[in-house]
Amino acid sequence: MGINRTKMRWNGWGWADAPDPLSGNEAVWEWMASELGMGALMLTPAIPLEEIELPASRLSITALNGLAEIVGEEWVKTTKSDRASYARGKSYHDLLHLRAGNLSDAPDAVVFPANPLETLEIVQACSERHIALVPTGGGSSVVGGVTASPGKDQQGVVVLDTTRMGRVLTTDTDAMTAVVEAGAWGPELEEQLNEFGLTLGHYPQSFEFSTVGGWIAASGAGQQSSKFGRATRWLVGAKLATPKGFWTTECFPGSAAGPNLTDLVLGSEGTIGVITEATVRVQKKPQVKDYRGYLFKSFADGVTAARRISQAKLPVAMVRLSDADETHFFRTFSDAQKKKSFGRSIKKAIERQVLKSNGVPDRPCVMIIGIEGHQHDVDICQKKTAHIAKSLGAMAVGKSPGTQWYQGRFHGPYARDPMLDHGLGVDTLETSTRWSNIANLHETVLAAIDKAMREGAPVAGTHGIVMSHISHTYVDGASLYFTFVFPRDLEREVPQWLAIKKAATETIVEQGGTISHHHGVGTDHAAWLIEEKGPVGMNVLRAIKTELDANGVMNPGKLISQ
Amino acid sequence: MGINRTKMRWNGWGWADAPDPLSGNEAVWEWMASELGMGALMLTPAIPLEEIELPASRLSITALNGLAEIVGEEWVKTTKSDRASYARGKSYHDLLHLRAGNLSDAPDAVVFPANPLETLEIVQACSERHIALVPTGGGSSVVGGVTASPGKDQQGVVVLDTTRMGRVLTTDTDAMTAVVEAGAWGPELEEQLNEFGLTLGHYPQSFEFSTVGGWIAASGAGQQSSKFGRATRWLVGAKLATPKGFWTTECFPGSAAGPNLTDLVLGSEGTIGVITEATVRVQKKPQVKDYRGYLFKSFADGVTAARRISQAKLPVAMVRLSDADETHFFRTFSDAQKKKSFGRSIKKAIERQVLKSNGVPDRPCVMIIGIEGHQHDVDICQKKTAHIAKSLGAMAVGKSPGTQWYQGRFHGPYARDPMLDHGLGVDTLETSTRWSNIANLHETVLAAIDKAMREGAPVAGTHGIVMSHISHTYVDGASLYFTFVFPRDLEREVPQWLAIKKAATETIVEQGGTISHHHGVGTDHAAWLIEEKGPVGMNVLRAIKTELDANGVMNPGKLISQ
Repeated sequence: MGINRTKMRWNGWGWADAPDPLSGNEAVWEWMASELGMGALMLTPAIPLEEIELPASRLSITALNGLAEIVGEEWVKTTKSDRASYARGKSYHDLLHLRAGNLSDAPDAVVFPANPLETLEIVQACSERHIALVPTGGGSSVVGGVTASPGKDQQGVVVLDTTRMGRVLTTDTDAMTAVVEAGAWGPELEEQLNEFGLTLGHYPQSFEFSTVGGWIAASGAGQQSSKFGRATRWLVGAKLATPKGFWTTECFPGSAAGPNLTDLVLGSEGTIGVITEATVRVQKKPQVKDYRGYLFKSFADGVTAARRISQAKLPVAMVRLSDADETHFFRTFSDAQKKKSFGRSIKKAIERQVLKSNGVPDRPCVMIIGIEGHQHDVDICQKKTAHIAKSLGAMAVGKSPGTQWYQGRFHGPYARDPMLDHGLGVDTLETSTRWSNIANLHETVLAAIDKAMREGAPVAGTHGIVMSHISHTYVDGASLYFTFVFPRDLEREVPQWLAIKKAATETIVEQGGTISHHHGVGTDHAAWLIEEKGPVGMNVLRAIKTELDANGVMNPGKLISQ
Repeated sequence: MGINRTKMRWNGWGWADAPDPLSGNEAVWEWMASELGMGALMLTPAIPLEEIELPASRLSITALNGLAEIVGEEWVKTTKSDRASYARGKSYHDLLHLRAGNLSDAPDAVVFPANPLETLEIVQACSERHIALVPTGGGSSVVGGVTASPGKDQQGVVVLDTTRMGRVLTTDTDAMTAVVEAGAWGPELEEQLNEFGLTLGHYPQSFEFSTVGGWIAASGAGQQSSKFGRATRWLVGAKLATPKGFWTTECFPGSAAGPNLTDLVLGSEGTIGVITEATVRVQKKPQVKDYRGYLFKSFADGVTAARRISQAKLPVAMVRLSDADETHFFRTFSDAQKKKSFGRSIKKAIERQVLKSNGVPDRPCVMIIGIEGHQHDVDICQKKTAHIAKSLGAMAVGKSPGTQWYQGRFHGPYARDPMLDHGLGVDTLETSTRWSNIANLHETVLAAIDKAMREGAPVAGTHGIVMSHISHTYVDGASLYFTFVFPRDLEREVPQWLAIKKAATETIVEQGGTISHHHGVGTDHAAWLIEEKGPVGMNVLRAIKTELDANGVMNPGKLISQ
C-alpha cells in the first residue's frame, strides 16, 4: 500500500533508518583520497531539515479544498516533511540542492488518489486551475524528472503520488500478460505476481523504490533486460488520465491499425498524463539463476564476446562487462572495505599467480553473465556463453563474482550519501550505440569526463576517477554506463557538476550515442533532445503535448524544455 | 530500377503477360460452382482499358511544369495507361471499380523522384499548391491505402512513385543493419542484400510487387515474421520527406530519450510524409529452410501447439495453421486442378487408410511449421516443434506439404483474376487477438461472414465459402486470416461486398480483435479505427498529422477518415 516517503531519506537514498554501509571504515576513505590525488577527505554533512525553511504554500484554500474533495482530506499532504520529500528526485544534482537546504522546489501539496477516477479528477482540476501537476511513483528519477517546479504563469505545484494504486488486477496465463495498477512499486508488484508463479522481471537498480508507472514513463530497463526486456518490450497497453480524459491505448498482439500509440506513453515522463494502469508481459518465475564471472584481457575482447552472445540470440538474462578501471576500482574498493581480514595477502598472491598463468593481465575486464530459467536450459546456455567467452581468451572465474554482483545489485546508490558526506561528488550517466561505435564512444566519453573533472577540481593536482561498463546488450549495439567520482568544489558544487555533465553529453551527442539509455530525459537532458529527435520530431512531440495538455500543467519543463 | 507498372495488370495481379493459372481447367470451375451451391459459373470479363474514358486532368500546365522542373519532364507521366495503373490498389473492392471501368480516381499525374531531395521538393510543391499527393511503392494495398482521391478543396491528385529509389546504401555487419532506399521492391532488395550474404527476410504475399517503404507505411508483416519480425521489429529508423522538411528519426539500440518517434512512421500510410530511406535489421541468409506439415484433429489442438511453440520461444520462422475448412478447400482445389493425373484414386484411398489408422479425422487441420537457419539449429528446433505437435495428437506428414506451401507462397493473388472473370467474388481480411480469444474470434467472424454472404447472395440457396488460418504467432496471441469466396451479385457488386466487410469488421471489433494485423487501415478500415485508438488517441493522430501536413495534402482520407 504505497511507499511511505516520510520513512525514506528525504535528501538521500533508501529508508531513513538504514545503516551507513561505510560507517567507521576509515580505510575506505583513506584509499579513496589517495585514488583522487587528495590528502584527506573532509566531512561535509547535509543541512538537516529542521534548519531549513520552506517557501510558503502558493495554493489557495479553495484550491486545496478542491483537491480534498476529490481524494479526501487525509490524502492531501502539506507538512514540511511531505513537501521536502517530494521536492526533487534522486540525482546527484538533486542531492546537491537538497543537502544545501535549497527547497525552493518543494511542492505546495502532495495528493494520493485511490483510483484512476480520482486521478483523472485531480488532473483535470489542476488543468482547469492552471496548477502544475507532477506525477510521481517512487520518485527515483536521476535526471530531474520529478522536480516539482511550476511552468510559466503557474502559481503552484501539486505532486500526484500514484502509490496507493498498487494492485495486480488480472493475469492471463494464456497470453502471459497481467493488468496492473501503475503505482505498484517493485517489491509489491513482484510479490503479487510471484503468488501466481509469475514475474515481470524488471529489476532496475532503483527496484526497491520505483514503480511500474515510473518504469514506463521513463522508458526504463531492468538489469535483466536481455530476458525480460525493457519497458518498451514488456508494455502491451496503458491507461492514462490526461487533461482530455482517459486514454486507453491499443492492446493487441501485432496490429497494423496505424501507428501504435502505446509507444507514445513510453518515455512520456508525465508530460501528457498520469499512467494509471498497464497491461504488461509476464513470464514464469525462473527455476534457477546462474550468474558467473569471466576475466577478459581487454575491453575490446569483452565487447566482441557480448556482441556474439547477443547475435547468437542465446537466452541470457544479462551480460555485464566492466572496463579495466571499473574492474580495478570495485576490486580495490572491496579490498579496502575488508582490510582487517586475516591471510588476505597470501590468498591474493596465490590468486595473482593463477591469473598470471592463465594469461590474465594485471588489469583485466570482468564480465558477469546471468542466465535465468529452467535448469536444463540454463545449463545449455551457460555452456554456450562460456564457449564464446573462452574463444575470446577469457578466463572463467566461477560463480563467486556473479553471486557477489547479484547480492549487491541494488546497493550502489546507498554508497553515495556517505561519499557526499565526505566532500566527494559522484554521479553516473549512460548512453547506447551500435556495436561498431562502442570503442569510440567509450574512449571519448571517458576522456571528456576526465578532462572536465580535472578542469573543475577545487585544488590543482587532484582529479577524478571515471569508469564504465556495458550492462544492456542488443543485436545491434549496447549501452555504456559511466560512473565518476571527484573531489567536490564546495564553493561551486552545481556549476562544477553542470560542466562535467555538459562535457559528457556533448561528447555523447557528437560521437553518435543516445542522450539516455534508461535514465530518461527529465530536465537534465532536455536541451539535447533536439539533437536526437530533430526539429521536426520535436515539433511532433510538442503537438502531442499540446493536444493532450493544452494548459501545459503536466510535469512542466520535463522532456520538452520550455 | 523500379517496378514498371505499365507492364503489370492495371486491373489485376501480376505481370500483364503472366499466364492464367486456371486457364482451360473447366474441372476447377465445375467444382467451385458445386461448392457454392450454384449450377454453372458465368463469364464476367473486365472492361478493357481501350473502352474506358478517363476524367480530364485537373492539373494546370503551370502545376505540371512545376513538377517537371523538379524531376525532369520524362518522370512526370500522364498517359492513360499510367493514370489507370495508379488509380487504385489491389483489393477486391479496387478491382470491382477498375474492372467495371470506373476510373474516377485516376490521378492527374504520376511523378518519379530520383532521390530524397526531389521527393521533398515534390511534397512541398504539392503542399503549397494544395494538390493531393499519394505516395506509392508497389501499390499493392488491399485496404484502399493508395486510392488516388483528392481531399476537400483539392483540385488534383499526384501519385508519387518511390521505386526509382531502390538501392541498398550501406550495410553494418557489426550491428546487422542496413540503410536502404525505401523504394526498393522485394526482389530488388533481397538481391542486393544477398550479395553480402544478408537478408531482410520480409516476405509478404505481395513480395514481388511491394516495397520497403510500403511495408513500413502499412506496418506490414512477412510470412516468416517469427524469425525476421514484422516491420515494427525490423525497422530501426527512417527518413521522411514531409511538408515540414526532412525528418530523420532516432536510430539507437535502446534509448530512453522520450517516446521513440520511429514508431509513428510505422503504419503512417503516407499521411505525414514519404518514407525515403530506412535503417533496417538484417540477418544472415539462412543455410537451410525446413518446412513440414502436421495434421491436427482439431483447430483447438493446433492453436494450443502454436501457442506452446511461441511461448517456448523456439526459433521457428513460421507457424501456419489452417482450419478444417481451409485445409479441405485447398486439398480439393488442388485435386480439382490435377484431375487428369492417373491412379490418383488408388493413391488417395491408401492415403485415407494411413490417416485413419493414425486417428486423423476426415477433416483435419493442417499446420505448416517453417524453420530457417543453420542445419544444426534447424534440426534441433524441428525436433522440438515436432514433439509439441505430436504431444497434441498431430500426425507428422513430412516435407511435401511444406514444400508445396513454400513454392506457392506468392501464388494466392494470381487466382483472383480468373475467379473474378467467372462471376465470383473473393476477398480476404485479417485480425489478431490474444490466445484465449482465438477460438471465439475464429467462430464469430466465420459466422458473420457466412451470414452476410447468404444475405447478399444473388440467387436464393447459393452461398459462400469462408475459411481461416493463423499465420503469425506471438507470445501473447496470434493473427487470424479469413478467405471468402461467393457468387457475385452483378447488379450490386460494391454494396454486396461492403455488407460482408461491415459484418466482419463489426464482429472483429465487438469480439476483441484488431481491425488489421498486417493489411493496414487505408480507407476501408478508417471508420473503425476510433474503436481501437479511442477518441483521445484519434485526436493525437490528428494532431500529429496537422503538425506535419497542415494543408492535408498527404494521402487524403487514409488512416484518418475525413
